[in-house]
Amino acid sequence: MNKWYEKSGNYSDVVISTRIRLARNISKYPFPCRLTSKMKKEVINEIDRALSKPEFEEYNFSCINVWEASLAEIKSLIECHLVSPEFVKADKNKAAFISQNCDISVMVNEEDHIRLQVMKEGLDLNETYNLADKIDRKLDESLMFAFNEQLGYLTQCPTNLGTGMRASVMLHLPALRRCEMIEKISSSLIKLGLTMRGLYGEGSEPKGDIYQISNQVTLGISEKTALKNLNDITIQIISQERKCRKELAKNIQTIDAICRSVGILKTAKILNSEDFMRLISNVRLGLSIGIIKGISYDKINEITINTQPFMLMKASNSELSAMERDQKRASLINEKMSTVEIL
Amino acid sequence: MNKWYEKSGNYSDVVISTRIRLARNISKYPFPCRLTSKMKKEVINEIDRALSKPEFEEYNFSCINVWEASLAEIKSLIECHLVSPEFVKADKNKAAFISQNCDISVMVNEEDHIRLQVMKEGLDLNETYNLADKIDRKLDESLMFAFNEQLGYLTQCPTNLGTGMRASVMLHLPALRRCEMIEKISSSLIKLGLTMRGLYGEGSEPKGDIYQISNQVTLGISEKTALKNLNDITIQIISQERKCRKELAKNIQTIDAICRSVGILKTAKILNSEDFMRLISNVRLGLSIGIIKGISYDKINEITINTQPFMLMKASNSELSAMERDQKRASLINEKMSTVEIL
Repeated sequence: MNKWYEKSGNYSDVVISTRIRLARNISKYPFPCRLTSKMKKEVINEIDRALSKPEFEEYNFSCINVWEASLAEIKSLIECHLVSPEFVKADKNKAAFISQNCDISVMVNEEDHIRLQVMKEGLDLNETYNLADKIDRKLDESLMFAFNEQLGYLTQCPTNLGTGMRASVMLHLPALRRCEMIEKISSSLIKLGLTMRGLYGEGSEPKGDIYQISNQVTLGISEKTALKNLNDITIQIISQERKCRKELAKNIQTIDAICRSVGILKTAKILNSEDFMRLISNVRLGLSIGIIKGISYDKINEITINTQPFMLMKASNSELSAMERDQKRASLINEKMSTVEIL
Repeated sequence: MNKWYEKSGNYSDVVISTRIRLARNISKYPFPCRLTSKMKKEVINEIDRALSKPEFEEYNFSCINVWEASLAEIKSLIECHLVSPEFVKADKNKAAFISQNCDISVMVNEEDHIRLQVMKEGLDLNETYNLADKIDRKLDESLMFAFNEQLGYLTQCPTNLGTGMRASVMLHLPALRRCEMIEKISSSLIKLGLTMRGLYGEGSEPKGDIYQISNQVTLGISEKTALKNLNDITIQIISQERKCRKELAKNIQTIDAICRSVGILKTAKILNSEDFMRLISNVRLGLSIGIIKGISYDKINEITINTQPFMLMKASNSELSAMERDQKRASLINEKMSTVEIL
């Protein structure tokens, strides 16, 4: 069963993935900040029991307890976008339930009792939401989520009140970045109740020209409307990015940068993460404007995830120094790039 | 008939070429600085007549008059090391006679009436000198060179008095440069009556880790002794360079730089001269320490010469902008590098 980042979906030249995250709390417990360690473990157990029911069997959830797992294991989950960077911070009385094909994760005792997340390749807000909604309803039956007719779902932070839904799309925008359009787009998004961030969520730098766009408003708006807004805007951005790419395709400096990136990725013996993200962004751009062949978007997504620092350590089952990682990354990428040809 | 830079000779991993240059003046004329334009033309004619004699037939000399030739044509001769950069400066009453395989050139009215130069691939001071000496003797018979029993050959600049000979070797010293040994070597050479310069002689910057070492002393020393000194020192430097290369061969950063250089040279669509010289130096180093295969030293010498700015223009028979040259250079090099493999 392939993971989401091993497949490519709709608009895969621009959209890497779609994500729906629902914040939920169990009505009979106080919010996590008011829970004792013991009660947090209880919450985890309740959710574990719920997810062990036959109706969840098809997802084959496995549980990772933060107090038992290694830091590398949890950090590798962040690199796969399965848990949030906040998940590893402070208190260890947390757990994550991850479906076998890595498209569903249930974080327990992050900011809320439950952060249910569903991810899909490409742009697919409706399907992604439908799956999240299906799981949400089933969990609600056994756990009874805190809900108020006036306010909607109750969440620890008031910015999530209402739908408790954060929908986001991960976009590759190398052309808009090169044409210096990102800042302009970012500020118009704010006016539309959307927000633009770097690769690993809030406060993170955009690496490899990858940006996340998500809804900000959860109160006084239905899930459907929020999803439609995000979808419409995303399609507009895709069309702007594609237009800019067409212009860039005529630019010899861009072509040179793309071809050199292929050359370096095929040959380098040391590749740090930053270097790699910059170079693979050029490869992705080159694929979309028809300068290179012999690789697909899903292959690019896959190597991007699999060469993140903790994913490398997880794969080699050992602690690796920065230099060891950079060499391992280079060797992996040399191999994956060997089929790439410049047209 | 191959040109010197299309062949590789002794110690070709380090030594690119050997050059002998003899400064001579015709006794019946004043030094060039005291000659009128008319007399300079006369000198050219005298030398033309001498070189047209049957004994020079085998070299098949062709004559380039500075007052008639295009700047690009003459600059391309500089790039092949057939004339000096000084040759194009100021007064145009100069000419160069170039043998068909480009190993012999006779510059007329540069600093002296005659600057006879012989070049050979690799380290071969004796053979190179023997050929220069043979031509020198034949020319002397018809032209009668200014010679004084006490001072030797008379030259316009007193620093050339005596033998009038400048012997030099062109060395590729990437390892000594990386190990920061160049300055130390350069200052010890001065004490030994030798001097170290960049690729295109006096005052020029070392490009692509290529250095020229030549004798400074021409007075009170025989040609034989001067050649032996230069040869001995060169062999010492070769051995130091090789030792440093062995160390570098273990260094992953060096290997990475070499492999990336191969990758870039195979793929780049724009390559400026400076970039190219830096990258090809890495390729040369890679070949010598066994990291790459599929190219030879003479092929590297050849592409280095043939991708110099004016050589590119000469080959395409047209004026080229810097960008056009950089693209043409890239395309030529992509092709020449296509056989190179990383081991």
